[in-house]
Amino acid sequence: MKRDTNLKNDLVVKTLLGEPTERTPVWMMRQAGRDLPEYIKLREKYSFFERCQNPELACEITLQPVDIVGVDAAILFSDILVVPQAMGLEVQLIEKQGPVLPEPIKTQDDLKRVRVPDVNDTLHYVFDAIKLIKQELNGRVPLIGFAGAPWTLLCYMVQGRGSKTFDEAKAFCYQQPDLAHQLLQMTTNTTIAYLKGQVAAGADVVQIFDSWGGLLSKKDFEEFSLQYIRQIAAALKDEVPTIIFAKGAWSSLPEMAATGAHGLGIDWCIEPQVARQIAGPMVTLQGNFDPAKLLSPIPVIKKEVTEMLRAFGKGRHIANLGHGILPNVPVDHARAFVDTVKEFAH
Amino acid sequence: MKRDTNLKNDLVVKTLLGEPTERTPVWMMRQAGRDLPEYIKLREKYSFFERCQNPELACEITLQPVDIVGVDAAILFSDILVVPQAMGLEVQLIEKQGPVLPEPIKTQDDLKRVRVPDVNDTLHYVFDAIKLIKQELNGRVPLIGFAGAPWTLLCYMVQGRGSKTFDEAKAFCYQQPDLAHQLLQMTTNTTIAYLKGQVAAGADVVQIFDSWGGLLSKKDFEEFSLQYIRQIAAALKDEVPTIIFAKGAWSSLPEMAATGAHGLGIDWCIEPQVARQIAGPMVTLQGNFDPAKLLSPIPVIKKEVTEMLRAFGKGRHIANLGHGILPNVPVDHARAFVDTVKEFAH
Repeated sequence: MKRDTNLKNDLVVKTLLGEPTERTPVWMMRQAGRDLPEYIKLREKYSFFERCQNPELACEITLQPVDIVGVDAAILFSDILVVPQAMGLEVQLIEKQGPVLPEPIKTQDDLKRVRVPDVNDTLHYVFDAIKLIKQELNGRVPLIGFAGAPWTLLCYMVQGRGSKTFDEAKAFCYQQPDLAHQLLQMTTNTTIAYLKGQVAAGADVVQIFDSWGGLLSKKDFEEFSLQYIRQIAAALKDEVPTIIFAKGAWSSLPEMAATGAHGLGIDWCIEPQVARQIAGPMVTLQGNFDPAKLLSPIPVIKKEVTEMLRAFGKGRHIANLGHGILPNVPVDHARAFVDTVKEFAH
Repeated sequence: MKRDTNLKNDLVVKTLLGEPTERTPVWMMRQAGRDLPEYIKLREKYSFFERCQNPELACEITLQPVDIVGVDAAILFSDILVVPQAMGLEVQLIEKQGPVLPEPIKTQDDLKRVRVPDVNDTLHYVFDAIKLIKQELNGRVPLIGFAGAPWTLLCYMVQGRGSKTFDEAKAFCYQQPDLAHQLLQMTTNTTIAYLKGQVAAGADVVQIFDSWGGLLSKKDFEEFSLQYIRQIAAALKDEVPTIIFAKGAWSSLPEMAATGAHGLGIDWCIEPQVARQIAGPMVTLQGNFDPAKLLSPIPVIKKEVTEMLRAFGKGRHIANLGHGILPNVPVDHARAFVDTVKEFAH
C-alpha cells in the first residue's frame, strides 16, 4: 500500500488502517466548497465548473477548511458528476438549484451516447489539482480523493436531476435491468480508472459516496449498487485506504465491511454502538453527527459531540458529520465541532 | 374498544388485534387521490381543498380504490396539513409543487398566530365525509382515518414547504427547544381531538403518519416526535386499533411498539425479519413493498410480492407499500399487487 511518509498529521490514515493514535481524527463531508465565506467570495466570481476545472482554484478551495477550521484531512474540491460528464453526458450545475442533465439516459439508444473515456484525457484537470494540492499541503494533513458510487451516478444520469425518491431511476433499473447493468459497469470501469488516477496524482485516501444507496432495499442495493462498489474497493484497497459512505444503507454494513474497505461512513440515524455491532469490529467507522445540529448553540454542539465520541469509543473512529455540512453553518460552529473532537481524551 | 359489527371484511381490524385471519389483508398508502384515472378527472375540475372539504367528493375519492383495485380497507381522502390549517396557519397545496405555508413559524411571536381549535368547528367537514363514507361503504371494508405526527406537521409549519432535510425545522428545534415543544404540544392536543372526532364519526382504525421521523437521530426522535405520538396513541388505543408509520425510524421500533399502538408501518429499506426481530412479536407490521417496484413488469411485481409475504410469514402482517403509491403507477400494476396478496396462501 502506498503511504506518504512526509505526512506530519497522519491520524486519518492510521485510524483507517486500525493503528493506534493519540486521539480521534476529524474532518467534515463537504467541508470544501460550501459554507466558508472565503469560498462564497470565489463562488461569486467563477462558475462551478471553472472552480472545479482550474487547479489553482480547486486547490485554494480544498485548502480553506484546513487553514480556517483545522480539520485533520483535506478533501478534494470537485463533484461526483464530473464522471458522467467525462462519460459524454452534458451536466449543468446551477447554483442553489442542483444538477441538471438535460439529456438523461432512458433507452438502449441513449446508452450509445455514453463511453468509458480515457480519464487522463477527460479528467486530467482533477489530477493536476491533486498534484498542486499535495504540494501546497506539504504534508500537513492527508488528501482524500473521491468518486460517486455507480448507483448514485446512475440516479442522476437517468433521472436527469435531483429527486427525493429517484423513482424514474429505479423504474429504469426494474424495467430494463440489462441496460442498467451496462451503464453501471461502464461507470464502474471509469470510476476505477479515475480513482487510480487520483491515487497516482497523490491522493492518500479515497472515499466512495453512495448518497442514494439508502433508497434501495437490501436486495436491490446488492444488485444495483454494492456489486459495483465491491469492484471499485477491490481495485483500490491495496493502493490506499478506502472509505465507503452509502447513506442510509445501514442494513448492508456487514457486506460493505466484507468488501475490504477500510472505513464505512454512517449517518446520525443509526446509533454508534448499533453500527459497530452490525459492521463488526474490524472496520473503521466514520461519522455521524447530524449536520443540522451544527446550527445549535455552541455549548449544545460541544455536549453532543462529546456524547458521540463516548458512544463510538476509543479507536477505529473518524469523527465526521453524517452527511455534508449545510451551507448556512457559522464558521465558529464548525470550528467548535472540530475543536471538541481534538480536545477530547478517551 | 369500538368495533363495527357490520363489517363484512374485517381482515385489517382482526390482523391489528392479533386475531387469526384466513389470509393477509392489503391496502396501499395514498391509494385514494393519487394515481387512479377516475381521480385525475376530478382533480382537473376541483382544487385540492375543494376535493378535501366537500364530503361528497372526499367520499367518492375514498371509495375509488375499493371499487377499482379491491383493497381490504378504505383510507380517508384528506391531507395531514388540514390540522395546521385548522390551527390558524395558511396552507396552499399547489398541484405537482407540494405544500406551501407562506407564513411559517420562526419566533415566539409567530406562535401567537397558532391556536388549539375546536375541531368540531374547524374540521367538521372531515367528520361529515367520514359519516358519508361509512354509509356508502356499507360494511364492505373498514375505514382508516389518519393524522400527521406532530413532528412531521412541525416540519411544514416551520420550514414552510417540502424539503429533503428539513434543516430549518431541525434548527428551530435545536435553537429554540421551548418553542418547539409548545408548538408540538398544541399540535398533539389538536390531533387527539381530531382523531377522536374521526372515530366518533365512524373511523374503524387510525394511522399516524410521521413521514419525517427518519430525519432525526434516535434521541431526537424521542424528544421531538415519539413523546407526542405516545400521547396520541395512549388517547386512542382503547377506542380503535392504531397504526404508527414513522418512515425510516426503524431504530425506534421497540419504543413505538411499547406505545400500545396495534400496528407499525415499515419501509422497504428494512427486511421484514429484521423489523420483526427489532419490534418484537406482539405488534402487527404493515408494509413494506418499494412503491417504485410497482413500475416493474407485472410478473416481477407478482414474484416480489410473494417473496415479501413469505418473509413476513403468517399473521400479524398487513401488506402495504413502504410509502405512498407513486402517481404514475398503471392501475393493472396496483391491481397485480393487491391480487397477489389476496391469492397467496401461507
